[in-house]
Amino acid sequence: MKGTLWLIPNVLDDGNPTSVLSQCVLEQVRKIRYFIIENEKSARRFLVRAGLKEVLDEIEWGMLNEHTREPELAPLLNPILQGADGGVLSESGCPGVADPGADIVRLAHQSGILVKPLTGPSSVILALMASGLNGQSFAFLGYLPVKPPERIKKIREIEQRSRLHKETQIFIEAPYRNRQLLSDLIQTLSPESWLSVSADLTSTSEYIRTAQVWEWSRKVPDLNKRPAIFLVSAK
Amino acid sequence: MKGTLWLIPNVLDDGNPTSVLSQCVLEQVRKIRYFIIENEKSARRFLVRAGLKEVLDEIEWGMLNEHTREPELAPLLNPILQGADGGVLSESGCPGVADPGADIVRLAHQSGILVKPLTGPSSVILALMASGLNGQSFAFLGYLPVKPPERIKKIREIEQRSRLHKETQIFIEAPYRNRQLLSDLIQTLSPESWLSVSADLTSTSEYIRTAQVWEWSRKVPDLNKRPAIFLVSAK
Repeated sequence: MKGTLWLIPNVLDDGNPTSVLSQCVLEQVRKIRYFIIENEKSARRFLVRAGLKEVLDEIEWGMLNEHTREPELAPLLNPILQGADGGVLSESGCPGVADPGADIVRLAHQSGILVKPLTGPSSVILALMASGLNGQSFAFLGYLPVKPPERIKKIREIEQRSRLHKETQIFIEAPYRNRQLLSDLIQTLSPESWLSVSADLTSTSEYIRTAQVWEWSRKVPDLNKRPAIFLVSAK
Repeated sequence: MKGTLWLIPNVLDDGNPTSVLSQCVLEQVRKIRYFIIENEKSARRFLVRAGLKEVLDEIEWGMLNEHTREPELAPLLNPILQGADGGVLSESGCPGVADPGADIVRLAHQSGILVKPLTGPSSVILALMASGLNGQSFAFLGYLPVKPPERIKKIREIEQRSRLHKETQIFIEAPYRNRQLLSDLIQTLSPESWLSVSADLTSTSEYIRTAQVWEWSRKVPDLNKRPAIFLVSAK
């Protein structure tokens, strides 16, 4: 009898899992003794706060991050194929959404392992919900190009795509490049387009603003080093 | 001093909010006495189960659904402008994501009202997480066209778009049309493409399967009348 692969959302800020995860989800997490993780330090912190402090020594770990090579994937499922339940835990938010983790889930399906996603924070969905922009159709694009000419070109494409498909376009940036991205967006987008920015979601310093680009140009917040999500909807 | 507009995710199945919402989220919901809702019956059921049974008579309601006309939107914010906290509650899942609710949130931003999204279930994110398909870039398209020729054309477009942008394409259908949609997908998509289907998410009858289209054609589940999410990733 195979185990189940549970997909466990991590906190977005440095907060306590109990503030965003339900009792049922926490009880499920506490039953698991094998975790496939992105980063050991943040995983240990999460599990201690989720109530697994006493059993931390019994836990088996599998590492899954940008350094994991393809041949190392399948062995990660061995404990589950042998009957143990496993949990995939990313560094922040939902595993497999805007981060690694999808490959192991697809492999689990191919191996006939039952996959169960648990409810928790997703910065993409929280930002979309809070933006007030079209949530009936939207696209998440990941990171924009770093080099200025490609980035400006991409911002123009994003606006066109939003207009063409009537879709909210969602993207992210490394926190230390937020300031530059916001400035590029304000300078490149049409003044009539809607721009929403969410930073530090679920934390006490949470910042959420939606306005047309011409309004943003009058008051630009400093988002430097704050994890942020950007949303554009062409008018 | 204006109130805050809280965005409250509802359960996806007919289950108990305590199984998917954290204690902190439930405590916040219990402080609210003004709710902007899509459907009164499901809102009452949610609030009773969330612990507001004793105060149900004190609650003020605002209706926001497909029958709400544009001039009726702004007055919905009046109690909040006058200092009361308000909650937006959809019939299922996250308000404003794949359902109405976005307009009132954008209006709240324009009125200088603080918007706070709460963590809870989103069928789109749960299905994406559980699919094992690319979650680094994805698009949610809403409903497909109902008429067969347009629908087949759209399915081809979806596959092309997934290939072109290396994006997982996510869409939904009215539950009584699931059987037909699944059959159309299996017949229209390339046999090599990945297809994932999630039905009855978070409920005891939860069904999640990811496989290539040629595998689906060998074993077609009956999803009739079960709320489902479809995901396609071209190979």
